Amino acid sequence: MTDIGKIGSHRLHAGRIINLDLDEIRFPDGSTGSLEIIRHPGASAVVPLLSDLHGNDPQILLIKQYRYATDGYLFEIPAGRLDGGETPEACAKRELQEETGCTAGKLVFLTSMWTTPGFTDERIHLFMAEGLTAGDSAREADEFIETVPVSLSRALEMIKTGEIQDSKTALAILYVAGFKAGK
Amino acid sequence: MTDIGKIGSHRLHAGRIINLDLDEIRFPDGSTGSLEIIRHPGASAVVPLLSDLHGNDPQILLIKQYRYATDGYLFEIPAGRLDGGETPEACAKRELQEETGCTAGKLVFLTSMWTTPGFTDERIHLFMAEGLTAGDSAREADEFIETVPVSLSRALEMIKTGEIQDSKTALAILYVAGFKAGK
Repeated sequence: MTDIGKIGSHRLHAGRIINLDLDEIRFPDGSTGSLEIIRHPGASAVVPLLSDLHGNDPQILLIKQYRYATDGYLFEIPAGRLDGGETPEACAKRELQEETGCTAGKLVFLTSMWTTPGFTDERIHLFMAEGLTAGDSAREADEFIETVPVSLSRALEMIKTGEIQDSKTALAILYVAGFKAGK
Repeated sequence: MTDIGKIGSHRLHAGRIINLDLDEIRFPDGSTGSLEIIRHPGASAVVPLLSDLHGNDPQILLIKQYRYATDGYLFEIPAGRLDGGETPEACAKRELQEETGCTAGKLVFLTSMWTTPGFTDERIHLFMAEGLTAGDSAREADEFIETVPVSLSRALEMIKTGEIQDSKTALAILYVAGFKAGK
């Protein structure tokens, strides 16, 4: 048996958001060791487009959200964890609706990324949403969110200046800008 | 007392890499609740430039690393956690040297980003390194890394095709490409 990867696993903490495991691992050189890992179901995030992507400086919808982990508010795009059995597409549509009230006419997949592979298996799936229809939001009790429409050029400036400090948000906006540029 | 944020904290797990706390929180509306949070010292990551950024299609140095959390290998840039009291700059230089053997002549700060603010206070500081001098690497026992030189245009293609699936790596490369373009 020379397969690399998991040999054994011990759950250290089963939480509301987080499961923490201590896994026994066989490394690529055949040696073994243990590693703490946060097990995560994965997440989706979506850039809501308020106007035609190929028009002059399209508008997108950011959210400004209280994040305890950062001790303040962050500019982000709508996002959240995959509920049991949910596809990334369904999650993106649901989070968009819950956090902004908008329903997507069309969802375009951008990419999937590991958020921080040193200690978690969280993978985030990035989308953009076109053809939005406004409606009522349905935020959870511990979500404090306001919506902030900005132009794509302003969003790129916010990444450069450090006003946008959330990884998934910066990545997804840079992707959308690449799509617009036809790259 | 109407301050928002931490009211209390209970350490659920003190680990080698990860500390997991259950914190009592006052939310912006004055309500209270609890939240699991991974406490992290922060990290640095660095894009090593092998040739002049403003030359024709500059070369960068990626690493290909075994990541248990992803069940395989990832293309990344050199990165790691801040050791106690270490500045982000010192961490970036140290990780560059340990993982690639290279010493940086000049380090340029790009930006800082929260990696996944829903459950951790991890913040990553992104740099690019110029004027590299080759030397010996000093990898840790559980690091399985090979270096992979690629052109910046090829790295951008790898982000588009999904060959690069690591958030910090994609973000830092997109930043460097923006610097080159003079944006």
